[in-house]
Amino acid sequence: MKNTFISQIRAGDTLSDQFVLSEKTMAHKKDGNHYLNLVLTDRTGSIKGVVWDNVGSISSQTDSGRVVAVQGHVGEYRGTLQVVVKEMKMVPEADIDPADFMPVTERNIDRMFQRLVALSESIETSCLKDLFSAFWGDHAFVSRFKRAPAAKKMHHAYIGGLLEHTLSMAILADKIVGHYSGVDRDLLLSGVLLHDVGKIREFSYDVRIDYSDEGRLVNHIAIGVQMIEEKIQSIPSFPEDLALMLKHMVISHHGSRELGSPEPPKTIEAVMLNCIDEMDSRIQGVREFMAKEDPGEMWTSFHRLLGRHFYRGQSVT
Amino acid sequence: MKNTFISQIRAGDTLSDQFVLSEKTMAHKKDGNHYLNLVLTDRTGSIKGVVWDNVGSISSQTDSGRVVAVQGHVGEYRGTLQVVVKEMKMVPEADIDPADFMPVTERNIDRMFQRLVALSESIETSCLKDLFSAFWGDHAFVSRFKRAPAAKKMHHAYIGGLLEHTLSMAILADKIVGHYSGVDRDLLLSGVLLHDVGKIREFSYDVRIDYSDEGRLVNHIAIGVQMIEEKIQSIPSFPEDLALMLKHMVISHHGSRELGSPEPPKTIEAVMLNCIDEMDSRIQGVREFMAKEDPGEMWTSFHRLLGRHFYRGQSVT
Amino acid sequence: MKNTFISQIRAGDTLSDQFVLSEKTMAHKKDGNHYLNLVLTDRTGSIKGVVWDNVGSISSQTDSGRVVAVQGHVGEYRGTLQVVVKEMKMVPEADIDPADFMPVTERNIDRMFQRLVALSESIETSCLKDLFSAFWGDHAFVSRFKRAPAAKKMHHAYIGGLLEHTLSMAILADKIVGHYSGVDRDLLLSGVLLHDVGKIREFSYDVRIDYSDEGRLVNHIAIGVQMIEEKIQSIPSFPEDLALMLKHMVISHHGSRELGSPEPPKTIEAVMLNCIDEMDSRIQGVREFMAKEDPGEMWTSFHRLLGRHFYRGQSVT
Amino acid sequence: MKNTFISQIRAGDTLSDQFVLSEKTMAHKKDGNHYLNLVLTDRTGSIKGVVWDNVGSISSQTDSGRVVAVQGHVGEYRGTLQVVVKEMKMVPEADIDPADFMPVTERNIDRMFQRLVALSESIETSCLKDLFSAFWGDHAFVSRFKRAPAAKKMHHAYIGGLLEHTLSMAILADKIVGHYSGVDRDLLLSGVLLHDVGKIREFSYDVRIDYSDEGRLVNHIAIGVQMIEEKIQSIPSFPEDLALMLKHMVISHHGSRELGSPEPPKTIEAVMLNCIDEMDSRIQGVREFMAKEDPGEMWTSFHRLLGRHFYRGQSVT
Amino acid sequence: MKNTFISQIRAGDTLSDQFVLSEKTMAHKKDGNHYLNLVLTDRTGSIKGVVWDNVGSISSQTDSGRVVAVQGHVGEYRGTLQVVVKEMKMVPEADIDPADFMPVTERNIDRMFQRLVALSESIETSCLKDLFSAFWGDHAFVSRFKRAPAAKKMHHAYIGGLLEHTLSMAILADKIVGHYSGVDRDLLLSGVLLHDVGKIREFSYDVRIDYSDEGRLVNHIAIGVQMIEEKIQSIPSFPEDLALMLKHMVISHHGSRELGSPEPPKTIEAVMLNCIDEMDSRIQGVREFMAKEDPGEMWTSFHRLLGRHFYRGQSVT
Amino acid sequence: MKNTFISQIRAGDTLSDQFVLSEKTMAHKKDGNHYLNLVLTDRTGSIKGVVWDNVGSISSQTDSGRVVAVQGHVGEYRGTLQVVVKEMKMVPEADIDPADFMPVTERNIDRMFQRLVALSESIETSCLKDLFSAFWGDHAFVSRFKRAPAAKKMHHAYIGGLLEHTLSMAILADKIVGHYSGVDRDLLLSGVLLHDVGKIREFSYDVRIDYSDEGRLVNHIAIGVQMIEEKIQSIPSFPEDLALMLKHMVISHHGSRELGSPEPPKTIEAVMLNCIDEMDSRIQGVREFMAKEDPGEMWTSFHRLLGRHFYRGQSVT
Repeated sequence: MKNTFISQIRAGDTLSDQFVLSEKTMAHKKDGNHYLNLVLTDRTGSIKGVVWDNVGSISSQTDSGRVVAVQGHVGEYRGTLQVVVKEMKMVPEADIDPADFMPVTERNIDRMFQRLVALSESIETSCLKDLFSAFWGDHAFVSRFKRAPAAKKMHHAYIGGLLEHTLSMAILADKIVGHYSGVDRDLLLSGVLLHDVGKIREFSYDVRIDYSDEGRLVNHIAIGVQMIEEKIQSIPSFPEDLALMLKHMVISHHGSRELGSPEPPKTIEAVMLNCIDEMDSRIQGVREFMAKEDPGEMWTSFHRLLGRHFYRGQSVT
Repeated sequence: MKNTFISQIRAGDTLSDQFVLSEKTMAHKKDGNHYLNLVLTDRTGSIKGVVWDNVGSISSQTDSGRVVAVQGHVGEYRGTLQVVVKEMKMVPEADIDPADFMPVTERNIDRMFQRLVALSESIETSCLKDLFSAFWGDHAFVSRFKRAPAAKKMHHAYIGGLLEHTLSMAILADKIVGHYSGVDRDLLLSGVLLHDVGKIREFSYDVRIDYSDEGRLVNHIAIGVQMIEEKIQSIPSFPEDLALMLKHMVISHHGSRELGSPEPPKTIEAVMLNCIDEMDSRIQGVREFMAKEDPGEMWTSFHRLLGRHFYRGQSVT
Repeated sequence: MKNTFISQIRAGDTLSDQFVLSEKTMAHKKDGNHYLNLVLTDRTGSIKGVVWDNVGSISSQTDSGRVVAVQGHVGEYRGTLQVVVKEMKMVPEADIDPADFMPVTERNIDRMFQRLVALSESIETSCLKDLFSAFWGDHAFVSRFKRAPAAKKMHHAYIGGLLEHTLSMAILADKIVGHYSGVDRDLLLSGVLLHDVGKIREFSYDVRIDYSDEGRLVNHIAIGVQMIEEKIQSIPSFPEDLALMLKHMVISHHGSRELGSPEPPKTIEAVMLNCIDEMDSRIQGVREFMAKEDPGEMWTSFHRLLGRHFYRGQSVT
Repeated sequence: MKNTFISQIRAGDTLSDQFVLSEKTMAHKKDGNHYLNLVLTDRTGSIKGVVWDNVGSISSQTDSGRVVAVQGHVGEYRGTLQVVVKEMKMVPEADIDPADFMPVTERNIDRMFQRLVALSESIETSCLKDLFSAFWGDHAFVSRFKRAPAAKKMHHAYIGGLLEHTLSMAILADKIVGHYSGVDRDLLLSGVLLHDVGKIREFSYDVRIDYSDEGRLVNHIAIGVQMIEEKIQSIPSFPEDLALMLKHMVISHHGSRELGSPEPPKTIEAVMLNCIDEMDSRIQGVREFMAKEDPGEMWTSFHRLLGRHFYRGQSVT
Repeated sequence: MKNTFISQIRAGDTLSDQFVLSEKTMAHKKDGNHYLNLVLTDRTGSIKGVVWDNVGSISSQTDSGRVVAVQGHVGEYRGTLQVVVKEMKMVPEADIDPADFMPVTERNIDRMFQRLVALSESIETSCLKDLFSAFWGDHAFVSRFKRAPAAKKMHHAYIGGLLEHTLSMAILADKIVGHYSGVDRDLLLSGVLLHDVGKIREFSYDVRIDYSDEGRLVNHIAIGVQMIEEKIQSIPSFPEDLALMLKHMVISHHGSRELGSPEPPKTIEAVMLNCIDEMDSRIQGVREFMAKEDPGEMWTSFHRLLGRHFYRGQSVT
Repeated sequence: MKNTFISQIRAGDTLSDQFVLSEKTMAHKKDGNHYLNLVLTDRTGSIKGVVWDNVGSISSQTDSGRVVAVQGHVGEYRGTLQVVVKEMKMVPEADIDPADFMPVTERNIDRMFQRLVALSESIETSCLKDLFSAFWGDHAFVSRFKRAPAAKKMHHAYIGGLLEHTLSMAILADKIVGHYSGVDRDLLLSGVLLHDVGKIREFSYDVRIDYSDEGRLVNHIAIGVQMIEEKIQSIPSFPEDLALMLKHMVISHHGSRELGSPEPPKTIEAVMLNCIDEMDSRIQGVREFMAKEDPGEMWTSFHRLLGRHFYRGQSVT
């Protein structure tokens, strides 16, 4: 069990706690002896570490990317905090609470998933019904889909974030779809539900949220297309044209090449999916950013990526 | 009354009809005599014209930018159609139906306006209620607001288009606003209603839709800010902070400098307004483009500005 | 059999010849009668056509996208040539020579393919050998791979162009791979051979070269990844890491998002594939452009896409 | 009165001095007790501070954005200087010299202003004369106009900078206007004088130079247009066309959308205003940068925003 | 001597006049016989031509890029005018007035040159005085410098345009240089005089203004650097540092890589040269564009490159 | 002789070693006394230094940009290492090994140069043979050419790097030139050999690699053109057209204006040179980056300029 989080650590503290061993690299001193450089993380941040003694045995007993129990003392080195680690060993799976190491959605995952399934059941086209039966019946898929984050940073970057983002978009789509005639509700809703499924493999999120090898090399868009193709193969006589339009919604949902979509949206449903995705990502991203800081200040700090401060205003209306 | 529209004219036709005299320039032949080059338009397009005889009297009796009755014969010159005009004179106001010369919304303008006013009445903040009373009580404003287009091309580029676009966005805003906690409904709705009011002066739309001098020189964003400032001045003790947030929504609704907004959205309501505006403009733009062409074709022609064909698909679900 | 090509047609000609009926749309005259607007193409260009008589029977007997035998007379209308079509009917498959309608590589397709297979046989990694056995053993694949173009315009835009481009790159890769230590020859060569396989479905090329529905909606990169995934599934215990690196080479071979690759090259072999692809595309594109025009002129005409004239120089050395 | 400036402070110093309390945020220690994080600034830079004792009373007696008298000791924490503050209280207005906290023009403000007024009096068009009478007769305006900076960084970023920049441009305009025939001197000069007036509200500059709420939300261009509109309203029968051209010069003076102007310059005077503004901003920006560093070095340090070193050269001619 | 200019030619005219034979390419008819395609130009535009008879002898007696006397008849072909040429032969040098074929400055070339030389004589640094003595003493240089255009399109695109542009900038520099302390007048003026000298070789302008081979391959910036280096070599002990700063002004005068300068301005004089060049090019470009059209219209036509209409306004002040 | 390299220095070390004195600036303490701020570098990095005592004599005896022998003690100041220097004096030329201060190619410089000369001797065009005789016969040129780096960072940023890069490209060109018909081997090879010769003056590389004044002000492209022009002047009747094409290859080898080439490649040989240069720079840049880090890690650290991690993979084939 975790006692102290990294954001609370101060120079001079004595530590005895769990962390993810994010990086571990061997180096050698001028006298030829070896030492270990570490990066330790939990859900509040990261801190550097160093091992001077028992280097061989400590290194051979710990794997990077796993949770370790660390004992040590906190000092400063070249302007940043550094833990001088005395002991470090692997923590048994059973003693780990992933929520210590990764942020988790504040909403109920099972209830969100039930609501999403219910929305998918309002789809009337039979082959699309079959498609969602195939997805929801795939336990390995569902298990990962319920836990995956929607991003590493920016918005919904927490366990359950993908589900939360997908559900939010599905509810929006449901509200909006009737507003414009000529939009196929079943196609739009299916596209919303599936547009980001590739993210369950794009990220790893066992004890910390990061890109997986497949995520960095192949990207969630191409992963998603393959996942949909695989499920469609299992459904007899799934219409070719419908399969293309579904994959197209995955391919084009970022809106343009510059934003990572090899093709721009070319159907009215793909245009709408792109709009709903942008709306949910942007608004949620700004809300998360504004919520992180003192709500009493009129202006937030500077948002580096978006290039601006945000304004909370005086309580207005 | 109009008989034939420009899109139907063929070489060899004899014409006797009303057109907008969009351009009229004097030129001279090698023998020193003068002639007139014309551009005639109606709601379906434009055609070139030339006057060889009675140049002086015809020119002195007609003003460009007005509706004229033309008699002439249609030929070809250098690969385009050209009307050799025999007679041309001004048409009295009473004989003009503006709908012959500019496209008009297919929806009922008065009913749209009533619905918009009703939505504005759901606002609870008293100074904002006062603000809309000021706008709706200004008959010159209302008269122009009900007729203005939302654009010269692209989307809602017709009489009543601004009202249709604003109403569509207001309904969307009303549906969506409850989806995200922490968004001020009164502020969002007010921003939606006012974000494009500057367009009533940015365009001229008496007999053809074009930019006005003020539109080209000052732009609907700066015009809108002045219009709001003027109305706010008429309301006793309108809160300074609320005035800034309203103007900010007008200033930032295009989303970025590249798209014409001097400042990007910095409040959650401004971010949301920008999303709703983009959604309505894009979807309506694509729908209008797809509707213009043969619905039996799977693909539309190439959309030059958006750089793609759009796909209608086989009837899917 | 074809007699005259479109580039040779002049106003006043009488036509009796085969063309691809690229477009056929019904329109109606002011008197309410119908007529057909056509676009006819062959490998040298396109020409407009119109059918005034027997509209119903001619339209019902012909399908757009197919080869038709046309009888008619050539005139001018609004500055372009136009065929007034008297008769038009479908041409039996047996009487069609695709080379009349699409440009074809000047090199021997079978010999190119043998050389490509031979290069693939120099690969030593056994699972990659298995992969190419799977591809070359798929007759439907090979048949399309030997005919597909590499592009619609720009470079290798002809039947056999994909094979010619792939072979040229494979020979280059073979020459260069030893120049830099640390590059895996088997991986590089496999990536070269497979990087564009998705193009066999991205284009249609029965009687004219154009994008297919799948090409426009899904794009050759995502198609290629699916094709490779499908073949890999058929090979027992294909290493996961190798599969990712192969797909990554397909995903990243355009080099950047702006150029259509969702991920940039992240392995040394992917960087090299991108360089070889750019080199072959650019040099061949420039060579084709320079070859199209009078070799006696020092400067070519202006290349619109590349934004420059090219210089042939005086015969120098 | 100030003794020591922040740029001179060293670890180990004991401080008793005035600073602007730029930021003040409450935080709590692991033991639950509160402390204050501060940022203190003066005209030479900023330094962090922390209050461990008497947190409640110190916090309640000081407001951020105001000048405070600080007693404390300077140490280092995580690689930067930090003042451990023992006492901190507000400084009475009378004891504050703003020049301690913000940089101030080296030139005489009153003399610059007289020269500017004299230039405005050389304008001959009567309604423009009236306009400047209205501005110069507005004491609140004049008082702020004489103190406002022209920027937060980059160039003329000091008290009096707006006046200095405007005067410099007016003198340049006066020199150049006769060089090109067809330029209206009165219009150009009026545009130069008014182009940046919105900056008197875009910035706050009581004890430190920063953006105001209105500056961040509405931007000096839209503020300036409103200020000019307000003054024009007070002048009977100010010509509509002239008002548009004046506002257009304000709207377009940054030259393009990317640089913040909703419309590009569309009159010859607006084009010229844009050129003169760029020339004065760039040259003055480079001169200020070159002057900040050791004039004996041939090369300046790297200018991050402009992406280059500047060269002073050996004394040449 | 020329009678008629191309802008005045109409279908049906009989021609007997001088033109520049800009292009001449041999083609063959279906019957195997040859014909010539021509492009004829004069200072008002260009027109297509065709030679059906005496093709061999006409072709062998005429060179493209030279002035020819043409006899023929004007018709239309595919929507553009076309001269059917009966006779065409070279015009002796003596019978050619270059001003018929290229636009020429409206100002007195010799008087402009004298004024420029006088300005150069106000330079006090002796080695720079020597440099200008070397340039002005080079008769081949002076002869070309007095005739060269400053551009092919956009601004000063006429014989004498380079001289006019350089003189205008030199006068501006002279007016402005004292406005900013710390600017070396001799260096600034020398940079202004020499910044575009490479254009005397970048363009050809014997009978029509076009890029030369050297212009297209090497570019006026690199040509100018070579010309200056060559003259500097002829001056004993020209200071190395001064030579670098002069060349730097040539290299950097376009301001950025995107605009064609390999290095951005890095001295205060280079920054100033860039500003003066932009000011003169932009203002003169806009003035020429506005002067080309009917001064009675409030708005010009659309300026394609600058992306806007320009406003002349009602006569204001 | 050097003992310790900067990358190995730790707080607490006592130093007695050689460094390049990269920067030396005088400052003064609050008490009015002077001290020196230093930057010391060697081939592994840089470290800050300060001199408190004997400031005058130490400063007068040492020049920045030269190698000095330093005695001092290493501490930390504001989060970085700092040497408190007790003694510092110039090192005689004879005691300096440049390889201590700058990275050096791992390959044999003389053998590389011989191979390059041999390749140049395979050129058959006599005037090009003469040109290379002129270059190789210029001892000052050869001496600098063999030592110059190809860059300050990124790729081949070490002594001998220019030669290594040029040779690598020449070998590639030799392999590839026969692959495309119509490419002039002599021209391509000459362009490859000369494309970067300007770098011998763009950089200074006596004791550390940095840009020279000429490099920053004039740039290697314009320097290279001047060097080639100078050598060509020495060869009787060198063909003008060939000279232009050679210079064009230097001018255009970066491929586009954005990348620093004033003109894009306009000959087939220039296109090919640009491709070969990009290939060698990119692949070598990635290889150097991947080699710098632990080869046991699957992913490299983040490459800031290229915006990605690189993947080494599991040993694959």
